[in-house]
Amino acid sequence: MIIIAKTSQDAEKIAAQLDTKNPIKPVFVHNNRVALAGVKKLPEDALKSISQYIVETITNHHSAIKSSRDFHPENTIITTKYSVIGGANFVFMAGPDSIESPEHVKEMGEDVKQAGATILRGGAFKPRTSPYSFQGNGEEGLKAHRAAADALKMDMVTEILDTRDVDLVDSYTDIFQVGTRNMQNFALLKALGKKNKPVVLKRGMSATIDDLLNAAEYIAAGGNDQIILMERGIRTYDNKYTRNTLDVSAIPVLQSLTHYPVVADASHAAGVSKFVEPLALAAIAAGAQGLMTEIHDDPSHAFVDGAQALTPAQFKQLTEKANKVREAIK
Amino acid sequence: MIIIAKTSQDAEKIAAQLDTKNPIKPVFVHNNRVALAGVKKLPEDALKSISQYIVETITNHHSAIKSSRDFHPENTIITTKYSVIGGANFVFMAGPDSIESPEHVKEMGEDVKQAGATILRGGAFKPRTSPYSFQGNGEEGLKAHRAAADALKMDMVTEILDTRDVDLVDSYTDIFQVGTRNMQNFALLKALGKKNKPVVLKRGMSATIDDLLNAAEYIAAGGNDQIILMERGIRTYDNKYTRNTLDVSAIPVLQSLTHYPVVADASHAAGVSKFVEPLALAAIAAGAQGLMTEIHDDPSHAFVDGAQALTPAQFKQLTEKANKVREAIK
Amino acid sequence: MIIIAKTSQDAEKIAAQLDTKNPIKPVFVHNNRVALAGVKKLPEDALKSISQYIVETITNHHSAIKSSRDFHPENTIITTKYSVIGGANFVFMAGPDSIESPEHVKEMGEDVKQAGATILRGGAFKPRTSPYSFQGNGEEGLKAHRAAADALKMDMVTEILDTRDVDLVDSYTDIFQVGTRNMQNFALLKALGKKNKPVVLKRGMSATIDDLLNAAEYIAAGGNDQIILMERGIRTYDNKYTRNTLDVSAIPVLQSLTHYPVVADASHAAGVSKFVEPLALAAIAAGAQGLMTEIHDDPSHAFVDGAQALTPAQFKQLTEKANKVREAIK
Amino acid sequence: MIIIAKTSQDAEKIAAQLDTKNPIKPVFVHNNRVALAGVKKLPEDALKSISQYIVETITNHHSAIKSSRDFHPENTIITTKYSVIGGANFVFMAGPDSIESPEHVKEMGEDVKQAGATILRGGAFKPRTSPYSFQGNGEEGLKAHRAAADALKMDMVTEILDTRDVDLVDSYTDIFQVGTRNMQNFALLKALGKKNKPVVLKRGMSATIDDLLNAAEYIAAGGNDQIILMERGIRTYDNKYTRNTLDVSAIPVLQSLTHYPVVADASHAAGVSKFVEPLALAAIAAGAQGLMTEIHDDPSHAFVDGAQALTPAQFKQLTEKANKVREAIK
Repeated sequence: MIIIAKTSQDAEKIAAQLDTKNPIKPVFVHNNRVALAGVKKLPEDALKSISQYIVETITNHHSAIKSSRDFHPENTIITTKYSVIGGANFVFMAGPDSIESPEHVKEMGEDVKQAGATILRGGAFKPRTSPYSFQGNGEEGLKAHRAAADALKMDMVTEILDTRDVDLVDSYTDIFQVGTRNMQNFALLKALGKKNKPVVLKRGMSATIDDLLNAAEYIAAGGNDQIILMERGIRTYDNKYTRNTLDVSAIPVLQSLTHYPVVADASHAAGVSKFVEPLALAAIAAGAQGLMTEIHDDPSHAFVDGAQALTPAQFKQLTEKANKVREAIK
Repeated sequence: MIIIAKTSQDAEKIAAQLDTKNPIKPVFVHNNRVALAGVKKLPEDALKSISQYIVETITNHHSAIKSSRDFHPENTIITTKYSVIGGANFVFMAGPDSIESPEHVKEMGEDVKQAGATILRGGAFKPRTSPYSFQGNGEEGLKAHRAAADALKMDMVTEILDTRDVDLVDSYTDIFQVGTRNMQNFALLKALGKKNKPVVLKRGMSATIDDLLNAAEYIAAGGNDQIILMERGIRTYDNKYTRNTLDVSAIPVLQSLTHYPVVADASHAAGVSKFVEPLALAAIAAGAQGLMTEIHDDPSHAFVDGAQALTPAQFKQLTEKANKVREAIK
Repeated sequence: MIIIAKTSQDAEKIAAQLDTKNPIKPVFVHNNRVALAGVKKLPEDALKSISQYIVETITNHHSAIKSSRDFHPENTIITTKYSVIGGANFVFMAGPDSIESPEHVKEMGEDVKQAGATILRGGAFKPRTSPYSFQGNGEEGLKAHRAAADALKMDMVTEILDTRDVDLVDSYTDIFQVGTRNMQNFALLKALGKKNKPVVLKRGMSATIDDLLNAAEYIAAGGNDQIILMERGIRTYDNKYTRNTLDVSAIPVLQSLTHYPVVADASHAAGVSKFVEPLALAAIAAGAQGLMTEIHDDPSHAFVDGAQALTPAQFKQLTEKANKVREAIK
Repeated sequence: MIIIAKTSQDAEKIAAQLDTKNPIKPVFVHNNRVALAGVKKLPEDALKSISQYIVETITNHHSAIKSSRDFHPENTIITTKYSVIGGANFVFMAGPDSIESPEHVKEMGEDVKQAGATILRGGAFKPRTSPYSFQGNGEEGLKAHRAAADALKMDMVTEILDTRDVDLVDSYTDIFQVGTRNMQNFALLKALGKKNKPVVLKRGMSATIDDLLNAAEYIAAGGNDQIILMERGIRTYDNKYTRNTLDVSAIPVLQSLTHYPVVADASHAAGVSKFVEPLALAAIAAGAQGLMTEIHDDPSHAFVDGAQALTPAQFKQLTEKANKVREAIK
C-alpha cells in the first residue's frame, strides 16, 4: 500500500502512528506530495488520528515509487556527452563483449560509430559462469576502453561487478552497466545510487517486471535517477536453439509502468549471431528506445561469447533496417 | 538418429536388421531418398550387413523428418480460395474470438476484410479453462461463420477440439485450427493428417520448438503437409502484466528448421489490448508470415476474452503499421 | 466470483438477472445449497432485486466448485474391487510403461502385486512425442492387460487418448488414466464425466494448480466425482539431470484445496531410474496418498521409457521404505 | 572438455599449446593428477606434440572440477564447533529470519536448541526486494546473534551481501551464508574463497544444477572447500499457493554430482507456514543432509517473512518427524 501525504511533516505524523519495524521513508513525488512506501495495512485504531494527513491511499501498486510513471508521468531523458537517451530518441550501444586489446576496441569502435552507434560497450570485468573462464582484463581493459571512446568521441559503458570497484570504474566510464546476475545485488545498486552517472540496469534472467522496477528503485532511492532499463532475454523451459527468450512484451509493459528509457540486448537473448537481427528488429518494433549489440571482426576467435557477435558489416545492415523499422512504427 | 537409404527396398533391408519394437517407418525425402526415423543406435553386429544400404546417418536431429527444412529445402506455400500463405507472402487472419451471432460475425468480417484480412477467424467450440464458462455455439456457430465467410469472399478458420467433430467441422471450414491445449492431442493430429485441408497448429503453451515440430510431423506423417505453425505466447514465471510471453525468437528459429509458414497470434500472448499492437509488430519484424488477431466492436461485452480484443479501428491501424514494418525489414 | 443461494429456484432467480452469455449453471454444494459459478460481477442495478436470494458471495476463489474442499469438506474415498483410495489409505499402482505381451504384463503384475501393489498399470495407447515412436498395442494390449489383472486379482488402470475410444477402453479397464498432454483435452474430460468409473487425472506438465482443479471440475461437472489427481513433474528451466521437476508442494497444496486423493508418479518426474526412489519417498513424506511406478524386468529393452523403469527388486525395496516413511509422518 | 595430465609440468606443456586467451588453470584432483578446465577443443596441429602428456580427456562434463564427485569421490565432512555436516550426519539450522533484538534471538535460540538445532540462523543484512523494506540491523544484529550463539553453545550462520562486509561478518560468524540473489555474485564468491570458514551457498532462484556447481567452484577455486549447498525453491510458472517450487530432485542429483553436503530450506520454498512441514519432510526423504528453518514466536509481528515462520512448538514437532523420516529411509 502506498500512502500519499501533502507534506513531509504530515508524512511524519502518519509514520509515527504506523508499525515502526519497517522505518517508513518519505519519498517526494510530483506535485510536491510525499509518498510513504511499504505500509502493509492501516491500523484501525490509529486511522482516526491520521486520516486527516492522508491525501490518498493506493493499493495493488508495486512498491517502486520514484520509478513509477504514476508519480512521474514525463519520460526521463538522459543526456551524456554524445548521446540522448529516452523519450523519442534512439541510441545504439555497440562494441566487443570484452576488451581484448587497445587496438581491437578502437577498431571495433570505429566500425560501430560509422554505423551510427554513439556509445561504445565493452567488458573489463566479466561475470563468467565458470571460474576457469577468462575473467576480463580489469583496469587495463578500462584504460583501453576509455582511450578508444575518447579518440572516437563516443560514450563509454562498462559492467561493474563489485562494490569495491565502484570508484575505480567511475573514474573511467561514462555509464555504468549492471549485469543480469547482479540485478538484485542490492549493495551494488545502493552504491550506484550515490553516483551522479547513468546506469544501464539489465533485467535479471528470471526477474519479474516488478523485481526489475524495485531494483531500479534501489538506485533511485539513493538519489540517482539516470536509469536505463534493459531487456536481455529471460530463462524459460526451452534453450535448445536460443540462449534465452527475448521477452519483447517487457518493453511496452515497462514503458507503461515507468518513465525510464527501455532498451534491448538481442545478442545475449539470441546467443547465436544469425538470430540477433530478427530479435533486435522485433525489440525495436515493440518500442525499444535503444539497442545494445556485441560485435567482433573475427567472432570465432573472440575471447568471450563469439557465437553471438555480429560482424561490423552485419551490424551496419542491422542499424539500417533498425532505422527503417523505427520509421515504420511512428 | 536418422538413417538415409537410396530406396524403399534398401530401407526395408536396413529395418529388418534393426530393433523391431519401434516399427521403422520409411519416409520419402527429397532427391527420392528414404529416411528411417527413430533409430536409437546401429547394432554393431548387423552393421556390416546393412552398411551398404545406408547413404547417410544423421545424429542430433529432431525426429520430425517431413517437417524438416534439411529434407525439404523449399518453402511450403499454401493456397486457399482467397489467400496465399508462406514464402514471401503475408496473411492477416482476424475476427471475433467466438461466433456470437450470424450478424456479429459478418459485421466483424466486413471490418477486418476492409483492413486487409483474407481469413476470417472465429470459434464455435471454445476450450475454456472452466467448465462453467461459455463453451461456444457449436454447429450453429459454424453455420454463421461459413455464411459470413462466403458472403465476404474470405477463407474461414475455426478451432477443432474433438476427433468426433472432425467431419462436422470439415464440412464447414476452409482451414482447421488446433489450439494450444491440444497441440499434443495426437489422436486429433492423426485425424487431421488424413484430411486434405490446411491446419493452423498453435504452439502448446509450454511446448519446446522440437515438441511443435513433432506435433506437426503427426499431421504430415498422415499425408497432410498443409501446415501453418503459430507462435502464440508461452508460459513463463511472470504473467502479472501480460497473459503469456510472446516468444518472438521462435519465429526465425522455426523458419530455419522447417519449411512451413510461421505466423503469430499476439492477442493471446498479450492478453490486454493495449499490448497487442507492439507485440504484433514485433512478431512481423522477427519475420512472421502472418498474423492472427481477435477483434470486437464492443470488447467489454465480448462473450470470450474481450480484454485482449482490438476494436476494428485499432485493427486497421495495426495492419497499416504492419505493412510498413514488412517493407522495412525487406 | 461464486454466489451461494439456498435453493435451485433462488439460484434461477439470480441467474435471470445476470449476464446470460455465460449460462449460469447451478451446482449443488454441501448443506444443500446451490452455487453459481463464473459470475464476473454483480450488476449494481439488479443487486437490489436479487440480494434477498444470495446467501453468500465468495471472491478470489478458483472456479472449481465441486472439486473444492470449501464446499465438500470430507475426503473423497474411492473404492474399487481391490483398492481403497483416498483419506488415510495408501495405494501402490505399478506395472510396465506399455503392454508388451500377455506374458510380460502378467509377470510384471505378479512382481508388483507381491510387493504390495493392488493396481496394475500399463499403456495400450501411448502418447509419444514423435509419430515414428511405438504407439502402443491398442486393443490387443487392453486384452492382455485385463487378463493379467483378472488372473492376479488386481485393478487395471490404463491411459485413454481419444474420445472415440472411451467405450472401448471402458469395456476393459477399472480405472481410466488421462495423461499430462491431455489434461486440458476438455472433450475427453467431458466424455469421462459421463462414466461411473474412477479417473486418474495427471497434472499437465505446465498446468497451474488452478488449471488442474478446473480440469477435474470438467469431469465432476458431468457427474463423475471419482477423481484421483496425480502430480508427475512439471516443466522448468532445467532438465539436464531429470526429465521433469517433481513439484512436491503440489501435494499438500492440492490436499488443502480439494477433497480428491492426490497421488504421485515419480517415474516420469525423474526420467532416470536412480532418482525414482528418492523422489517417490519425498512425495510420500509430503503426504501423497498413492504412488504410480513404472517397472520392467529388462529396462534396457523396454518398448517405452526404459531409462526410468525400476526393476521388480528395486520396486520391492521402494515399497518397504515407502511404508516406513508413511509411518514416520503420522 | 577437461584434460587430465599426470603432473603440473605436463599440464603446463599442454597449456602452452592451447589457446591462451582463457588462461588454463591447472587444478589438482585425486590420485595427484592435474586437470585442465575450460579447453574448448584440442588443436589438430598441436595434438601430436601434446598427446603424450594427456592421460585422459573428458567431454560432456560440467566445468566444476574441484566440486565434482568424479574427481573427489569421498564426501566432504565439515566440522564446526558444535556441528558435523555432511556424509551420514544431519544438521538442523534454525532461528528467526532477521535479528530483531538481543533478547529475541536468544529466546528463539533456546527454543531451537532444545528441539535439536546446533546452528543458529539469523539475518543482520537483509536482501529485500524493495529498498523501502527493513534492511536488517547491521553490525548491531551481528553482535546480538554472536552473543546468543555463544551463550547457547551453538554455531552461528548469517548472510553476507557485500564484498566490503566480508571481514566484518567474518569477525562475528561461524558460517557464511550466500543468498539466492547473490549465487552468481562472483566477486563475493571469490572473496569467500579466500576465507577458511564454511559457506552455505543457496541455489539461485533460477539457477540450473550446473550453475550452482560452478558457483561453488568459484569458492573452491579460491582454496575454500567447506561448502554446503542449499536447495531453497526455484521460480516456476505457478506461485499462487507457494512462494517458490521446492526442487527435491536437486538433492539426490547434486549428491550424485558433488561431494559437498546438500541441505534444504523449506521455509522460503513454501512461503506459508502450513506447507513448511510437508516440504521439509519431503526434502529429508529425498536425502537432504540438513534443514534450515525460520521460526518466530509471534509470526504475525515478525520484522521479515512472518508468514513462513514456524512457531517453536511447530518446529519441535517438525524435528521429531524429521528424525523418524531419516530412520525410515536408511
